Order: sequence, then C-alpha cells, then structure tokens
Amino acid sequence: MKVTILGNNSALPAYGRNPTAQIVQIENEILLIDCGEGTQMRMAQYGHKAMRINHIFISHYHGDHFFGLVALISSMSLLGRTNALFIYCNQFIKEVIEFQLQWDLGFEIIYDFLNEGEAKLLLDESKFVVRCFPVFHSVPTHGFIFSEKKRKRILLPEQLTKYEIPKYFYSKLTDGFDYEDEYGNIIANEWVTKKGNISKSYAYTADTVFNKEICQYFMEVDLLYHETTYLQNESEKAKSRYHSTAMQAAEIAVASHAKKLIIGHFSSRYKDLSPFLSEAQTVFEPTELALEGITFDV
Amino acid sequence: MKVTILGNNSALPAYGRNPTAQIVQIENEILLIDCGEGTQMRMAQYGHKAMRINHIFISHYHGDHFFGLVALISSMSLLGRTNALFIYCNQFIKEVIEFQLQWDLGFEIIYDFLNEGEAKLLLDESKFVVRCFPVFHSVPTHGFIFSEKKRKRILLPEQLTKYEIPKYFYSKLTDGFDYEDEYGNIIANEWVTKKGNISKSYAYTADTVFNKEICQYFMEVDLLYHETTYLQNESEKAKSRYHSTAMQAAEIAVASHAKKLIIGHFSSRYKDLSPFLSEAQTVFEPTELALEGITFDV
Repeated sequence: MKVTILGNNSALPAYGRNPTAQIVQIENEILLIDCGEGTQMRMAQYGHKAMRINHIFISHYHGDHFFGLVALISSMSLLGRTNALFIYCNQFIKEVIEFQLQWDLGFEIIYDFLNEGEAKLLLDESKFVVRCFPVFHSVPTHGFIFSEKKRKRILLPEQLTKYEIPKYFYSKLTDGFDYEDEYGNIIANEWVTKKGNISKSYAYTADTVFNKEICQYFMEVDLLYHETTYLQNESEKAKSRYHSTAMQAAEIAVASHAKKLIIGHFSSRYKDLSPFLSEAQTVFEPTELALEGITFDV
Repeated sequence: MKVTILGNNSALPAYGRNPTAQIVQIENEILLIDCGEGTQMRMAQYGHKAMRINHIFISHYHGDHFFGLVALISSMSLLGRTNALFIYCNQFIKEVIEFQLQWDLGFEIIYDFLNEGEAKLLLDESKFVVRCFPVFHSVPTHGFIFSEKKRKRILLPEQLTKYEIPKYFYSKLTDGFDYEDEYGNIIANEWVTKKGNISKSYAYTADTVFNKEICQYFMEVDLLYHETTYLQNESEKAKSRYHSTAMQAAEIAVASHAKKLIIGHFSSRYKDLSPFLSEAQTVFEPTELALEGITFDV
C-alpha cells in the first residue's frame, strides 16, 4: 500500500501548496481521498491517470476538500469513461455534482452517503477493506481507514514433498488448517507453511479537533495521517476552529500506537513548515511532513 | 493595457497546460476573463492577488471556463473581502455559485447577465470601457472587448504662454476645442496642444466556430485573442464542435484588421504547439502563441 500526497494546505492555497487530496494505491487499485481544486492537474503531474480511479472518498463538504471533484468527473466524462464511479460522501456533494453536471456523463455514479457520527464499512474488496469513522469538525466529517486483508500463509514446497501432502489440500494449508493423513497422523500447519506478509493499514483522519476518542477506530495503524492546521502556540485558535496542532497530532499517534505519522493541512499563515515537524517529533519521533508529491510506503 | 495568460488549454488539462483564464490590467484595475480550475493558484504563481479583482467576465458556462470560480470566490470570502464583486456571465453561473456557497460571504456579488446574441456595454470606467459581443459556440457564448477611452490632447506650456491662453480654458483645449480671444482671434487647438497617447484595445473572442460576422465588434483592435482548438487538417471536427483552427483564427485577424493576434485553447491531443504558430503565421504573420505566464503588452 502506498499513499501519495497531492495537496497539503488548508482552506487557502499558499506558497505553492494546494488544498487536500491524497492517492492511496492498494494492489492495482487507485483510490482518491478528498479532491481539492486542481487535484486532476496534480494527479497528472505525479503520473496518476484519472480514469483509473473507481472510488473517491470525500471527508466533508468544505470546499478545500472537494472543489476539484466536479472538474475531475467532467474530465472522466470527456475522456469517454463508461465504468461506474463510486463516491463516498455527504449528500450535499451529490447535489453539487448533479446541479453542475446536467448532462449524460456516459457512466453511472454510485453514492454511499456518510451519515453524521456513523462508522461503517464502505468497500470490501478481495484484498482490502475501507471503513469510515466519525471525527470532530465544524461540519459532519469522516476519516477513513484502508486495511489490507489478512494474508494467507505461504506454502513451503520442500516440506510439502517431505510430508507427502496431496495438492487438493494446499488451499486449506494457506488458510491455516493442519493436515491429517489416512493413518490419522497430524501434520501441523506450521511444519509445511510460513507466515504470510503482514497486512498493512492506513488511517486518514481528515479535519478534526484534538479528540482521543477517534483513536478507537485505527489502533496500531501502520501509517496515520493527522491534520496540523496550527502550531501548539495557536491551540486556542485550533480548538475554536475545530482543527488541531502538530503536538496534538503527535499525541493521537502515541495514543493510537501508530507506527508512523504524517502531518498536513497547514494553515496558509505558515510559510516554513519545519516547526510543525520539530513540534510533532518532540512527542512522536517517527513523524514526517506530508509534502506534496511524496509517496509514503505503508 | 496588459494581458497575462493563466490558462491556454481546451476542455481537458494536458501537458501541464491549464483551462482558460486571462488577466487584463488596465490602469490600476485587474480584470479576470474566464476562470478555469486552478485559476487562483496560477494568479498567485504569476503575482496577482485575488483580492484586487473587482470584475470577472465569464464567456460561457462550459466547465473549462468557470470551474475555478466558486473556489476563487470562496477564497475571497475567507480572506475577508468586503468590496462588491461584479460578475458578467450567463445566469447558470450565478445559480452554481449560490448553490455551492450557501453562507454569508461578507461581500455582495453583483451579476450582469449576458443574454444570448446580445452585444452590450458592461463596464464604463473613467479610463476604459468593456463590452461584450456574441460569438458562435455550442452554447450561448460571448467575447469581450476592452477599450481605453479616447485620450485627451496634451497641453504645450510654452505655446500656452505665447498665445496667452487663460487657465480656465485649458480643460477645453485638452478636449480639442479652439480658443477665441476677446478680439475674435482664433487660436487653433493644434497650435497649443499635441495629440494624446493612443487608446489601445484588446478583444477576447472566447470559444467560437469560424465566423467573420464577429469581426464587426472589434475592427482594428490592437491585440486579438482567438481560439485555435485544432489545426486546419481537423477543420471538419472544429466546425462540428463549434471550435476554430489556427488558420481560421488568422483569417479573423486579417478580416478585422487586427494589429496582432494571440492564439490559445489548444486541444489536449496536441503536445507540440509550434504547428499552430506556423499555420497561423502563413496567413497573419504577427501571431504569437498565448503561452501560460506570458504577459502581452497591448
């Protein structure tokens, strides 16, 4: 799983930084989280084709998280898309799309509405799942967690030969079952298989005020994105605007036992981002800035 | 008067080229023509402040000409704008803005609707006027002409002394009147003044199929922008989609006696733009490509 940052600024674009958008790559799937203005241009800039996106997750209806969506969908239509597009969003987003794009797009848009305060399964694919969970912002807002499914165990060919396991039983072995031969002998699963690759997970917590209640939805995640609109010396402003500071983001990483933290959604008042990094690292060392164009391996 | 190109591509962004937007600077006024996605980012990139814009001219309601408008207005609001904003557009644009921005922006938007087929005066400032005129596209579309007002004649101080012209008559002299003294002697205007600076004009013809009827609205313009979505070998496609070729743009420049032509709105099928320039220059030599970031002196 990989996460590419397309935009890392808050409401107003500034210093060449753009509004929020991220690409999540899992297996062959390209998923889009939020879609600030200009997202389709930055996708092209970083080598991602709009047409490969089948699922778009919009955290909330503030403009810096969706003003690029109508244009992206319009481009998909102009490019001749026929595959259905799935959008997970607040109902207002659907209304905006339908108000602006009043022509036959050539493909269906299937909406799954995120209801205020609700955590639920959004997408269940063969190799991963995506869930949403509520966070605490000035309007109904959701975070998303992308989790690879539990990997199957890996067969050990020499051991399979040694214990004379019949081929029809191989898929049972990868699922973890022991083998019992015709004489009642048990061949333990761990004698003929090894552990599969670790299943990774990525949590995107959108725009939110500092609140540890959200941690329950993404405990022990491999990579956590948390917003840091302000530095800690503006914590009162952060709170009043339902945003967080770099220190608070790091505290969420600690509380949720995240393995790594990336921070973004910087206020346009800050030109230099290095204080965000140093502030967060005082609390949680494995932190990085979510800089535009960077791809993080989960 | 100066014209800065912010976007020069047609419907789909491609090869780093962006959808249509232009800045016109006249005296101290910054005017915006069309507002494709990402216009506010490119304004910042080229050093133009969004807050200085008081007048926005939207040629038609195709997305590549206005998908950046809601985000631009939203930013103006977040930046604390209080001055009224004037938008000259089709009524649908107003509906889109009002549908998406359902909060108190902190400033008034004053709309002037461009009615299908109508040419009219939009803006009459002390030093310039802006008019719209109908062009021929698949939806109601208007071009715009920006004209400096006729400059006053310039006084010649030594001659004023020599002919003993009283000061109260100076403003009449700059308006071109002769002076008659108390004895009935006529002092001809050209003896005591010289010609004022030449008044310049810029015509933006938006998206249009090739049609010389539009020339009547901008004869002898100093700078003409005409779209060139295709090359001449795609003239049938251009016609069917209500667009023009480079050769046709040049023919409009010839027919309207323009002094200089700039061409843009290139289809995303073309990576190399040099064939557009050479094709247009075979018909009208003083042609330039409307490349993004370039400022043309009118």
